[in-house]
Amino acid sequence: MPVMPVAVETFILDPNHQGTLQRQLQDIVTAGILEGRFRPGDRMPSSRGLARHLGISRITVTLAYTELVANDYLSSRGRSGYFVSETAPRPPVVANAAAVPGHSKVDWSRAIGRRTVASPTPDRPEDWRRYRYPFIYGQADARLFDHQNWRKCALQALGARDFEAMTSDSYGRDDPMLVEQIIRLILPRRGIVAHGDEVLVTLGAQNALWMLAQILLTRSKTAVVEHPCYPALRAVLQQAECTTLSIPVDGNGLPPDRVPRATDALFITPSHHCPTSATMPVERRREILSRADRDDFLIVEDDYEFELAFATSPSPALKSLDRSGRVIYVGSFAKSLFPGLRLGYIVGPAPLIEEVRRLRTLLVRQVPGHIQRACAYFLAHGHYDAQVHKISRAYRERRSVVEAGLQAEGLTIAGSTKFGGSSLWMKTPGDVSARVLANRLRAQQVLIEPGGPFFDDGDDPGTFYRLAYSSISVADIPEGIKRIGTESAALADRPMAR
Amino acid sequence: MPVMPVAVETFILDPNHQGTLQRQLQDIVTAGILEGRFRPGDRMPSSRGLARHLGISRITVTLAYTELVANDYLSSRGRSGYFVSETAPRPPVVANAAAVPGHSKVDWSRAIGRRTVASPTPDRPEDWRRYRYPFIYGQADARLFDHQNWRKCALQALGARDFEAMTSDSYGRDDPMLVEQIIRLILPRRGIVAHGDEVLVTLGAQNALWMLAQILLTRSKTAVVEHPCYPALRAVLQQAECTTLSIPVDGNGLPPDRVPRATDALFITPSHHCPTSATMPVERRREILSRADRDDFLIVEDDYEFELAFATSPSPALKSLDRSGRVIYVGSFAKSLFPGLRLGYIVGPAPLIEEVRRLRTLLVRQVPGHIQRACAYFLAHGHYDAQVHKISRAYRERRSVVEAGLQAEGLTIAGSTKFGGSSLWMKTPGDVSARVLANRLRAQQVLIEPGGPFFDDGDDPGTFYRLAYSSISVADIPEGIKRIGTESAALADRPMAR
Repeated sequence: MPVMPVAVETFILDPNHQGTLQRQLQDIVTAGILEGRFRPGDRMPSSRGLARHLGISRITVTLAYTELVANDYLSSRGRSGYFVSETAPRPPVVANAAAVPGHSKVDWSRAIGRRTVASPTPDRPEDWRRYRYPFIYGQADARLFDHQNWRKCALQALGARDFEAMTSDSYGRDDPMLVEQIIRLILPRRGIVAHGDEVLVTLGAQNALWMLAQILLTRSKTAVVEHPCYPALRAVLQQAECTTLSIPVDGNGLPPDRVPRATDALFITPSHHCPTSATMPVERRREILSRADRDDFLIVEDDYEFELAFATSPSPALKSLDRSGRVIYVGSFAKSLFPGLRLGYIVGPAPLIEEVRRLRTLLVRQVPGHIQRACAYFLAHGHYDAQVHKISRAYRERRSVVEAGLQAEGLTIAGSTKFGGSSLWMKTPGDVSARVLANRLRAQQVLIEPGGPFFDDGDDPGTFYRLAYSSISVADIPEGIKRIGTESAALADRPMAR
Repeated sequence: MPVMPVAVETFILDPNHQGTLQRQLQDIVTAGILEGRFRPGDRMPSSRGLARHLGISRITVTLAYTELVANDYLSSRGRSGYFVSETAPRPPVVANAAAVPGHSKVDWSRAIGRRTVASPTPDRPEDWRRYRYPFIYGQADARLFDHQNWRKCALQALGARDFEAMTSDSYGRDDPMLVEQIIRLILPRRGIVAHGDEVLVTLGAQNALWMLAQILLTRSKTAVVEHPCYPALRAVLQQAECTTLSIPVDGNGLPPDRVPRATDALFITPSHHCPTSATMPVERRREILSRADRDDFLIVEDDYEFELAFATSPSPALKSLDRSGRVIYVGSFAKSLFPGLRLGYIVGPAPLIEEVRRLRTLLVRQVPGHIQRACAYFLAHGHYDAQVHKISRAYRERRSVVEAGLQAEGLTIAGSTKFGGSSLWMKTPGDVSARVLANRLRAQQVLIEPGGPFFDDGDDPGTFYRLAYSSISVADIPEGIKRIGTESAALADRPMAR
């Protein structure tokens, strides 16, 4: 962190202050230091500048500074000016929150009119990068990401030619270059044909699902989801206040005959069920579409991770079979590029897209311009394809090493995708608790993700976990799996630990 | 646009297709061309690659390609492969929307459960940059923006050291570096002291207002706004379904004694009323705070544009006087940096910030990492200060030229801020319609913004307009103002045009 100049604007005189001007200046500085806002090494404003800013005499400032030097709040470095002393008193550790400036007399439990459901998050330490065997899901891998070309494209998008794309308030319009790339480069691979007014850029898939739930669902409507299910989707639907029904999936995904006639919107992950990885066969897809036609419900298809198809070609998206315009497709760049980018998209009929755009305008006005253009260049220059190819090759290798290890350890895969993906859905041996297993493995540098958050409250069998290979090096996989195997076996032998 | 390779994944064989494989391949290509997805110059997959992808014989692909060359859909460039022919048939202009793939059989008027209020937007042509005299508000000026240092900071934030800050799914955390800069560099200038858990980064001020309205207001609660008022705020409150009361401002902003006792949340712009630019004197501020204490309501302070204080120091934020923790402060980088950045922040008591963070996690998970870090560097390296200083100097000059021009033309300023800002609030002479005036001026290369969107439906006097100097060069101001003067006078003389 460079030396921080303390701005003159920090000095605001209080007309009701009881002491002298000099005293008031000293108080502002000591308060700044004791509250931790000015830190050792920070440079104070020049006496001339501060005096002019406050409309007071320069000698007053100099006297205040001199006094502060005497008390070791400041130090003087001759002509360089005054700085917060390296040995200045430190801010006290505040024990009583009520005594700090941030205290509020408001009864927030009453003032907050609408509470948000907390999104369940995977049980994962914040410093997961420091673990040797992180079988965790959904983060970018620095070893695989084409950082250099991303930087080039981002830099190109920072250029003078793209000034307007980066800086403008676009009044709700998307970057036309990114929309074009999505339509021409991404969607055809999923068998989807779309016009410009049928695509909307979102701040990731979560943002897409949230907006669709807000628009399509109300208290009187019924949403149907798979069970188990992406946890943030359940939270999103709770927020929309609709009725939500969960339907258990089997090895072929959602059974169409279980979808009730009264459904208004069905949320599914047909190509790669989250989290069991089941792929829905084409007959089921057609069956779901014909039921949707018969019962007049909408389908929201979350097609996450379709890019990571390293084993076989993924089946075309459900949307590609849709002849009635009732499938709304949600895609994301979180897995193929990186989650911190926050870029995704919705493909759907124009009247719906128009409505979502209106909501997005109210929410955030628009998606930040620069990231849209940087992504458009990355796609247009062919780096996206190379990137997906590179990730896929690496995942294929990791996956085969993972599978070999699991077989050697006699561990049970509960679900996996034929085409690829970045994780496996695992079942512990016997009734071993996935949470207990995860906790014990963590002490051995191994991170796995217990499956609890994917289940409805009370419905968690407690014995499933997700094992992802998107953030672990291939070399570390065998030892990591071995530790999982050893620990699983040890727990299975001790019924008490279940 | 570089040559676009057509991906092999675009070719999806339909098991129900009636013709030969070769015919099917030809159909995929011709459909791609006729639907505008494949364009002249696009490169087709190699015959070897496509054959392998589809698991068919290479000769089939070659025969299909040869046939397509014969029909001038493709052209062959020897060993470089096959390309969409420059003289290939063009996609037809589609007259009947029902015939295109995007057609939907869903009755969207029924399927959409919750409609979004359209945010009124300023009446401004999309190609405003092509007008010579654009007195329009809220866009970045390439002449003033420190593009070079922004690029440097953005590039720094693209570096390997910041890989995690850019790419991670942070699970709702903000960039700690940006939060630190806001707390140490920005807030002190507004007299605000805040801890880390009292600050939340948002996707601009609009996103902040939207989330606060969602959390604080329900059907049974009452919001109070200024009248006239920032139009998007009214839309945001309509969406929250609360009761909204508008209170007319006077030359000193909102009169405190007009705020009803039953208020739950008061939304104000005390330092610089939007759009009249009135600054609320300190006595009124204290009066509002004491009423808020007495009647137990919350205050949302939108402190937009405080940075642009070129004339006098701005009064400290209302939040700085708040001793009860009931003022929630909203800031934005849209005016000091650029609106397409979509960065703002909320400062408020920790229990509220926690709730807003939970909602933001559901909405978008997090603000994109790279823009947070780039902004943090821009602040930490001192470029932000220099930038604000540069803009302020330029605005001061433009403002004085604007004021001289208005005086010479005898035009009436209805509202202006002592400390600076980027616009004036204007009244037309007599009863001249601001909309008529704007339309006539547009034909003369002059853009002004009629004030209608700032007023409640039916309450627009029709004679106000906003005159901004943030996007017009100082050299063009005199002629632009002269045209406004001439046209205003001409309309005032012709009562029919009012």
